[in-house]
Amino acid sequence: MSTNTSWHYENFDPTGSAIGYRITKKLDEVQSPFQKIEIFESTDWGNLMLIDGAMMLTTKDNFFYHEMMSHPALFTHAKPENVVIIGGGDCGTLREVLKHKGVKRAVQCDIDEQVTRMAEKWFPELCEANDDPRATLLFDDGIAYMQNCEPNSLDIVIVDSTDPVGPAEGLFNKAFFESCFRALKDDGILVQQSESPLMLLSLIKEMRAEMGKAGFTTFQTLPFPQPCYPTGWWSCTLARKGQGFDFRVDDARAKGFDTKYYTADAHQGAAVLPPFVAAELGEG
Amino acid sequence: MSTNTSWHYENFDPTGSAIGYRITKKLDEVQSPFQKIEIFESTDWGNLMLIDGAMMLTTKDNFFYHEMMSHPALFTHAKPENVVIIGGGDCGTLREVLKHKGVKRAVQCDIDEQVTRMAEKWFPELCEANDDPRATLLFDDGIAYMQNCEPNSLDIVIVDSTDPVGPAEGLFNKAFFESCFRALKDDGILVQQSESPLMLLSLIKEMRAEMGKAGFTTFQTLPFPQPCYPTGWWSCTLARKGQGFDFRVDDARAKGFDTKYYTADAHQGAAVLPPFVAAELGEG
Repeated sequence: MSTNTSWHYENFDPTGSAIGYRITKKLDEVQSPFQKIEIFESTDWGNLMLIDGAMMLTTKDNFFYHEMMSHPALFTHAKPENVVIIGGGDCGTLREVLKHKGVKRAVQCDIDEQVTRMAEKWFPELCEANDDPRATLLFDDGIAYMQNCEPNSLDIVIVDSTDPVGPAEGLFNKAFFESCFRALKDDGILVQQSESPLMLLSLIKEMRAEMGKAGFTTFQTLPFPQPCYPTGWWSCTLARKGQGFDFRVDDARAKGFDTKYYTADAHQGAAVLPPFVAAELGEG
Repeated sequence: MSTNTSWHYENFDPTGSAIGYRITKKLDEVQSPFQKIEIFESTDWGNLMLIDGAMMLTTKDNFFYHEMMSHPALFTHAKPENVVIIGGGDCGTLREVLKHKGVKRAVQCDIDEQVTRMAEKWFPELCEANDDPRATLLFDDGIAYMQNCEPNSLDIVIVDSTDPVGPAEGLFNKAFFESCFRALKDDGILVQQSESPLMLLSLIKEMRAEMGKAGFTTFQTLPFPQPCYPTGWWSCTLARKGQGFDFRVDDARAKGFDTKYYTADAHQGAAVLPPFVAAELGEG
């Protein structure tokens, strides 16, 4: 290995663990009005995007997250046509959502245009669907966007945000979830990334509690591998107004588009929580 | 957090990534005839065992590995009675194997007695089954043990080893797998830990090829989360002489003992490989 490599470590205080990468150089850096975005080149993981020093995604492993943030919800909703993504500025979730031919409109609302500009430059594969006529890219405050959404108009809201500290803190509380609840139709689904089910279960419980206060009554937390996030094991949580989660398994099996991780079987496997997680969430 | 903590990082050259832990102190250290064993106390992961600087296990997350190295094989074999564990000196796999009431004899053969002594001291919960009358703990060369095994005598061989470099290198080649093949009955199953399915797929392919040269004809690679190993996503590979893998799903659902991660559903989910892994292994 060239002596021009170095190791970049990120310490995660809440989990008491760290993840590092062998990097070759810094490719880019921009200070937006909201945050500092850095792009590194690595020896084995492709490009890395860090926001305020926190790992957001790598070329190599972002597919786990983007596929699991989108397909489980879209194959659970009976007929998803109108989708809103709050955050998600790297456009990877948008790309996955638009693989569903039934989707008529997908709005991505990220506060920071620079995240998308950096993604277009350094992760162009994630931006392949940005020109899809069904896609609308907004650069605006996602909290305000959801507040102003027409009530009862959306099938799915995907909150593809950073951790619940700093700019994204407002995306994890009752007030925000109430906006989502109001904007969703009666059979709508809210999806939020929900951190590590190994180390951050208390956060998942708190998040579900806030969603519950906003009116949501049924929840489903799906774990999945995500090597670049703390503990390498991550989750998303789906919330509905009343119904359960009727997975359209036959449609998922015949999905007609490529995925790297998501399958109907992976979805079904994730839907049955490991006993220690189920017990902690009161589903044991 | 106390200022008496420090961060311990382990760089993994083959994956170009690193994992670290916030540690409070070194609890123990021994230089055995084979390797250096260190025990650290961490802030969030309980105790850590490192061998020659490489993370072996943590109190917090070893259950993923130990459960997945044992239960899938034992619930696939029709009637597992005689089990051999090569390596596995921390006794965690032995404990899981002995949860199966049908098992009549489980031999654990680790070359290094000090690993077991350190486990008894710092991970006593993993050693709960060491006094089970069905258990035999040997401290000897696993390669020689398998060579000298009575042919056609074993139901399951679990190779619970370190990475295929250094002392454990001989546990990944044709000669060793031939010994396993000879010792196993016709319906026997070999299990080997098989590294990260994200970054080390070439190793899984090579291992399967060596197993194939030794006579094994059917393979099943099962991914699972393992936060303390490179990429946080790990796997075991099962090999059989001729039959497929008929999972005793009803028995697994009614297993009658506790697990933290393993369930019949987790097993079934893992058995369907993600598309990118299946394609790489020629099962797509």
